[in-house]
Order: sequence, then C-alpha cells, then structure tokens
Amino acid sequence: VYKAVNPLIGKAVSRRIIGFRAGGDITRYIDVVAEKAVLDSVKRNKVNCTLISEEMGVKKLGNEQEVYLVVDAVDGTTNATRGLSFVSTSIAASEVNRFSGIESAVVMNLIDGGTYTAVKGEGSKFNGVRIAPSRRRDLSYAVVSVDLSKSPTSVDVVTPLLKEVGALRALGSAALEICHVASGKLDAYVDVRNKLRTTDIAAATLIIKEAGGLILQPDGEPLRDVNLTEVNRFSLVAAGNKRLFESIRRLLKSKECSKGR
Amino acid sequence: VYKAVNPLIGKAVSRRIIGFRAGGDITRYIDVVAEKAVLDSVKRNKVNCTLISEEMGVKKLGNEQEVYLVVDAVDGTTNATRGLSFVSTSIAASEVNRFSGIESAVVMNLIDGGTYTAVKGEGSKFNGVRIAPSRRRDLSYAVVSVDLSKSPTSVDVVTPLLKEVGALRALGSAALEICHVASGKLDAYVDVRNKLRTTDIAAATLIIKEAGGLILQPDGEPLRDVNLTEVNRFSLVAAGNKRLFESIRRLLKSKECSKGR
Repeated sequence: VYKAVNPLIGKAVSRRIIGFRAGGDITRYIDVVAEKAVLDSVKRNKVNCTLISEEMGVKKLGNEQEVYLVVDAVDGTTNATRGLSFVSTSIAASEVNRFSGIESAVVMNLIDGGTYTAVKGEGSKFNGVRIAPSRRRDLSYAVVSVDLSKSPTSVDVVTPLLKEVGALRALGSAALEICHVASGKLDAYVDVRNKLRTTDIAAATLIIKEAGGLILQPDGEPLRDVNLTEVNRFSLVAAGNKRLFESIRRLLKSKECSKGR
Repeated sequence: VYKAVNPLIGKAVSRRIIGFRAGGDITRYIDVVAEKAVLDSVKRNKVNCTLISEEMGVKKLGNEQEVYLVVDAVDGTTNATRGLSFVSTSIAASEVNRFSGIESAVVMNLIDGGTYTAVKGEGSKFNGVRIAPSRRRDLSYAVVSVDLSKSPTSVDVVTPLLKEVGALRALGSAALEICHVASGKLDAYVDVRNKLRTTDIAAATLIIKEAGGLILQPDGEPLRDVNLTEVNRFSLVAAGNKRLFESIRRLLKSKECSKGR
C-alpha cells in the first residue's frame, strides 16, 4: 500500500472519482489503487481469508477462510488527495467474526512509513519499539484531536470540550490519530459523529488498548462488540488515561443533559 | 534551523522549560536552539540587521542595520515537542520597519524540509516551483483549517463556520497552514483568537499574497500595517479566492451580530 499510495499523494490523479459506495461515499482513484495493492498481496501470498474493506465490502478469498482481515487501505483520503501529510493504512486480523476477536493489527503512516503494530496480550510498538500513552491528566494542558467534519450536531456536543482543551487538533485520519494517542503524541482523540466504520478503527483499537490507553464510547461504555462483516458506525473517545477520559466525558455529557432539558 | 530542530522533534529534551517571555508564554529548549541557529547564521554571514524574533525580541546586529529580519524560529512548538509532524520556521525581510515593506520571505517545513518562498512582485514557489491557491468556492466542499486553542470566545465566533465546512482541520502551525492555502493544499485558514504575532505571520503573508490568495482581517479589512519592531496581535482569514473568503466572512459576521442582540 505504501509503495502504491505514497507517490500519488497530492497528485491530481489521486482524486479522480471512480464510483460511489453503498453509503453514498465517493470512491476515488487513490482508494482503488490502495485496495488493489492489498488484494494483490493477499492473493499472491495465498492467504485464505475473509477480506473486509471499505470499497470491496466482504470478499472471500481461497478455499477455507482461516482469518478475517479488516482493511482500511487509505484512512485520510481527503488529506492524501490534497497533499496534506497525514494519511494511514490499517489492517487488523481476527480468527472469529467479532470485533473483540482481533489479535493483531498494523497502522502505517503512508507519508513516512512509520508503523504501529500490536499483538493481543503482547503490547504495542512503533517501528518495533514499545509505546505507552501519555499520563497527562489536566485537560487544560492536553493536546486533543477532535473530528467535527460534516456533522453540525456534533459541533454542539463538543463545544464545551473545545473551550477547555489546551491545544486542539483535527488531523484527518482517525486510525493514525488513535495510534498517536497510544504513543503519547496526542493526549486524546474525540469523534462523536457516529460516522467511524469498523474498518476505520479495528486495527487502531487493538493498538491503543495494548499500549495501555482507553478507547470507549463517549458515555464510557465499551465499544460494541459487533460482527466484523456487518456495517456499523461508531462514536468514540480515545484517551491516554482514565482521568483525562473522565474530564472529556463529563464535558460531553453535560452538553447532552442540557439538550434534554 | 532545520539541522538544529529536526533531530529534536518528539524528544523529551525539546520541551524542557528554559524561561518565560514577556507575554507569559513559555520558552522551551527547542525554541532557544532554533533561535540560536538563526542568530549564529546571521552573525557568521555578517548580516547588518535588526533581528525581530519571539524569544529575543528586537536585536540590532552589525554597525549599520540594512535590513529588518522577522523570524519565528519554530512555529508549532507544541507539535514539535510532542512529535506531531507539522512544524515550520519563518523568516521575512524588509528594508523598512513596516509590515507592508516585506520584500522576501521563506517558510520551511521542519519535518521534510519542503520550502515556500516569495519575492515581492515575483510570485511564490514551493521547492522552486510556482504555486497558486485553490479555486474551490463552495464551503461545503472546502478543507478549512481553524485554530481554536485556548480561546473559548473564538469557539462561539466560529461555531456556524464549523457546521458548514466540508472538512475541518487544525494542524498547529499558522505559518505553514497559511502557506498551504497559498499552494492549494488547504482552501482556507481561520484564526479569530487575536493571538497571532507579527513574527508568526510576516513571511506567510507575503507568500499567500504573491501566490494570488487572500489574507485579511475576519471583517474583510486589510491586515494592519504595523511597525515590525512593535508587539502586535492579529486575527485573520486566509483563503484561496474571494468567493470562499466571503462565505467564511458572512458566517463569522452573522455570529457577531447575533451576539450583539
């Protein structure tokens, strides 16, 4: 994927519209090239798998499917097509058709090749070196990434949070942002738009959990343990530690309460 | 600056607090190292100049000062200290002590060395190739970067804008974000916090103007033509074209009106 996608970043051809997906999202040239790289590699290595991806949906490869591969070939398509340097690719593997079954994961930065990996029960690494999230608890000093794009209602939900964070970021690739929370480059990541797909977060979720960070629904409940082959949408908060998570949750929750009055 | 700063990015030593500035901002190790690199270079090359920078303030070098150099050695200190890949350095040169006098400018991306340059009347370049801003006029498809950090009142001012933009970003280095508008990687950049300093924007302002983009106060007035040696703060909107600027201005303005009721 890196070899196929990296040379296309910021090039006009990358954003050529190739088709439309079931959800109404646009499929661009760069997405197709990236998924083809995954598909070719899986076929070449004769991996018997159920491949789950954004563009192709669910695809069975080989005779007896031994593994579920959940793929987001390009996360940050807008950044990639515009030439903004924040783009990633995600692959997660599970023996069972459940989100909770994911046993290994990789998220690669497609700009510089930096690679996050995790194996269940064995922790997470960046470029082979163990990582841990930040211990920063004070929201007023925290660097927090929030995705608000195309979601007017979520703007209202996060407004109190926006006013409290030390430094606000919005970088445009959820998988890489969650991994940056896992490694302490960000203190938290917030997306309450209910737009993130299983493919967007499957790999990053294992990486942040194995690093020792939190990834939960905005109300503090665990992420739903969905079937990998189903289409699902998520809202979530990833945070380096419980105290910071609670500070964020309270600010989101107080807004939800005020809406109910 | 690139050679001095790049190896420090994401390293713990980079964020060591060295002192406090007049404005109450913190001075970190990485800021000091970067400014020393500028100062050493200016001395080594025997440039007779008035050097204006964040940490050192106004410093006269040589016998007869022939040029004003406006320097922001590290823009994106938080990103640099946390290891987030969006950091720049800015230098602008003027023969007179006026913002409008700036004749040449450089903004370098300290992650990959990519370099924006401009000479008054001769256009702007990225890595030596002429650049132009985007012609995207429709806000609902635009990629717009907004800085909201540590400014609760500005959150309210930009809320209507946040609800309309196609893709929202907050990248953390104003100079590089303005240059990305100049080159069409972003469609617009908005900062209504009244926090940007002359040093932050002097170089990027020439670069976006020479590229053919707009940089104005949020109400559409030109940026104030201040003395370079004075301390001033700015709010601004940079946009690729007039139509997009007007769409943004209207959304900011309508909020200001509603506050007045």
